[in-house]
Amino acid sequence: MSLTDEIATTVAQLRRTVADLHGELTRNELVIWTAGNVSARVPGRDLMVIKPSGVAYDELSADSMVVTDLHGSLVHGEFAPSSDTAAHAYVYRHMPEVGGVVHTHSTYATAWAARGEPIPCVLTMIADEFGGDIPVGPFALIGDDSIGRGIVETLRSSRSPAVLMRNHGPFTVGRTARDAVKAAVMVEDVARTVHIAHQLGRPPALAADDVDRLYARYQNVYGQQ
Amino acid sequence: MSLTDEIATTVAQLRRTVADLHGELTRNELVIWTAGNVSARVPGRDLMVIKPSGVAYDELSADSMVVTDLHGSLVHGEFAPSSDTAAHAYVYRHMPEVGGVVHTHSTYATAWAARGEPIPCVLTMIADEFGGDIPVGPFALIGDDSIGRGIVETLRSSRSPAVLMRNHGPFTVGRTARDAVKAAVMVEDVARTVHIAHQLGRPPALAADDVDRLYARYQNVYGQQ
Amino acid sequence: MSLTDEIATTVAQLRRTVADLHGELTRNELVIWTAGNVSARVPGRDLMVIKPSGVAYDELSADSMVVTDLHGSLVHGEFAPSSDTAAHAYVYRHMPEVGGVVHTHSTYATAWAARGEPIPCVLTMIADEFGGDIPVGPFALIGDDSIGRGIVETLRSSRSPAVLMRNHGPFTVGRTARDAVKAAVMVEDVARTVHIAHQLGRPPALAADDVDRLYARYQNVYGQQ
Amino acid sequence: MSLTDEIATTVAQLRRTVADLHGELTRNELVIWTAGNVSARVPGRDLMVIKPSGVAYDELSADSMVVTDLHGSLVHGEFAPSSDTAAHAYVYRHMPEVGGVVHTHSTYATAWAARGEPIPCVLTMIADEFGGDIPVGPFALIGDDSIGRGIVETLRSSRSPAVLMRNHGPFTVGRTARDAVKAAVMVEDVARTVHIAHQLGRPPALAADDVDRLYARYQNVYGQQ
Repeated sequence: MSLTDEIATTVAQLRRTVADLHGELTRNELVIWTAGNVSARVPGRDLMVIKPSGVAYDELSADSMVVTDLHGSLVHGEFAPSSDTAAHAYVYRHMPEVGGVVHTHSTYATAWAARGEPIPCVLTMIADEFGGDIPVGPFALIGDDSIGRGIVETLRSSRSPAVLMRNHGPFTVGRTARDAVKAAVMVEDVARTVHIAHQLGRPPALAADDVDRLYARYQNVYGQQ
Repeated sequence: MSLTDEIATTVAQLRRTVADLHGELTRNELVIWTAGNVSARVPGRDLMVIKPSGVAYDELSADSMVVTDLHGSLVHGEFAPSSDTAAHAYVYRHMPEVGGVVHTHSTYATAWAARGEPIPCVLTMIADEFGGDIPVGPFALIGDDSIGRGIVETLRSSRSPAVLMRNHGPFTVGRTARDAVKAAVMVEDVARTVHIAHQLGRPPALAADDVDRLYARYQNVYGQQ
Repeated sequence: MSLTDEIATTVAQLRRTVADLHGELTRNELVIWTAGNVSARVPGRDLMVIKPSGVAYDELSADSMVVTDLHGSLVHGEFAPSSDTAAHAYVYRHMPEVGGVVHTHSTYATAWAARGEPIPCVLTMIADEFGGDIPVGPFALIGDDSIGRGIVETLRSSRSPAVLMRNHGPFTVGRTARDAVKAAVMVEDVARTVHIAHQLGRPPALAADDVDRLYARYQNVYGQQ
Repeated sequence: MSLTDEIATTVAQLRRTVADLHGELTRNELVIWTAGNVSARVPGRDLMVIKPSGVAYDELSADSMVVTDLHGSLVHGEFAPSSDTAAHAYVYRHMPEVGGVVHTHSTYATAWAARGEPIPCVLTMIADEFGGDIPVGPFALIGDDSIGRGIVETLRSSRSPAVLMRNHGPFTVGRTARDAVKAAVMVEDVARTVHIAHQLGRPPALAADDVDRLYARYQNVYGQQ
């Protein structure tokens, strides 16, 4: 398929953005070797930009990024897409508000996922970003829509942009790929802090209405408007 | 408001200092994404220099720093000030000896804060820098003076330049912004070491008069006079 | 011994590769000081390229790498070979499919080795790369073939490319030296994640047929074909 | 005092060496801010080269290093010597075989020191480098010879080049300053690994004669002869 000029410019920018955002995964120590991936939806098209499969992070470039349709079929690019492409594609098909998806096996979030325990909302930072406990999704094998369906069903019953897939690891979503990366960074950070807090006791949960107030404020007031 | 020449030079230097000190927060792994901030009082004025809200650490520069009055209202700068500005401002209004304030969500200090437990003075380094246990402050919602009041009331009943705000994270103060950053680095370091010590037992506390001797010596003798 | 032209070219390339792969050990924080080593078999010859003994990682270069026969005797190079050379050589003599061997004392894998406990297969990533639990090998003293024999006997009864040698640390193998380094990186990563999961409970093991499916897929489908 | 030409050259080299070795402390994450120091004996003289007090690691240079006598009195240099100078000097006065001393508050070693527990010899790497358990020294206040005496008395009853001073942190010695730094790096590494092993059980200790064999081999055979 050849891309029209207009969409070609958008795709070129997204390839650059998605390639660069993988640098945040390594800088924040969320991934090792090739085990994590970022994608972005091409706005207004049934297309996404995603990492190629099994390529090392320091060999990634805008050119090596892959374009697929929203069923994971290769549309543009020289490499096979990430083995997690089907999960990303399922999310884009079923959550139209989502513009970016990230998957890692970051250590502490994956440890919660291994035990199948949600991360309890015991920190103001969790209330701010996740709006409550960070939920656990089902165990699902790679190879069909099981992982994607597990992600979407879990996220729909929560305000959290992160889901801990059982015995597997975290997936995060965002309005943009950068927002999804931010959620991936923050889910690991709070997974670590709450884990460490739990090693020596049980911190009290925040009251539900305090969580609501913090979440509302952070989503609406924080940052540059 | 336009700044007079004299104060303009001081403010320009403080913008540079405060911007650079954020680099110590990342270098010492006390913060992720945009979740931490440093401020400095403008000496002799009811003004402070603080980080802008929601701006990434590697995009910070002297120019992007913000000047507010000591009620948190913007006086100079192109960005909205940190969402924690009210807490910093409250500290400057009520603790005239304080010239710098730092807030992070550093992992181990925040874990102690989540459980609401003070860090016990079981290391000579804690006696040196903190003069005793590192105290816990109350849970307080963002949005008014609650956080600032909790910080000030807790610090006043202690020699510690650090307070662990419940379910939130540490705030530190210092004669200068650099001193407050040093306290932020050291509170995380001792929070981590004591946490790890506690995982396999309970270290004995230092005797009170040994704490006093160590504190007096470190505050008066250490470093270049 | 002087090397023929053809083999000299191959050896020169392998010296470069093996020297560079030590950089992955430090980048992934698997080693400190001089305590870890990578080797590669010279294809079709009874030779291997390995790290010199006791040389700091940032002083390693292609030129400082050592060539030995498969009994560990020096064939080419200015330095004494790694003190673990006998173990590497034993593996190459008895596992003809192995082209690379790595030894580290990486923290979490060594902690499992110290307790003599296999790492249970509780993560999809473990099923993918290791095909089941990561096994423990016997305690063996350095100085003869004991370590090599322990590695080979343990690996032969497992699909895992990694073995945790009791009270010592992990050894990994691969079709190439790069594959063995990847296994060294991943064994530490999963050792850490499963350790952390176990600190607060016991994650359920994956079902044996799910492990088989994940392993088959990852070995055959993952990456660029 | 002005130094003779011959000794001046030696001292200049040692200033460079000692300054550079502080870079190993930061690279190996053994120290924060200014809380750790390296010294070297000036061979054949009652002099030592040591870090200045309270100076940041990235501001250290050969020129900022300080020369003192073996009672800690300043002989040469523009800064006040490290507040730990008396302890270093005591070691040099009483252990003529020691050419270098290092002190840190590295996290895991300090955690063992806080509990007053020796690190048990459960790893071949501990037998190699430390020749048995890593011993605990007494609690001692800074300000006189107490710390130095505690270090020397503890090290004399052990083969270990490291001692864990109670409620304080590790001190290490070596034939050279570089050897003492190596011991500081390794004591933290094994303190961490054994701590992590202990979190989920108790690893068996090595047999005493295996420890002896490993220690003898490592001290005599390892490295380039």
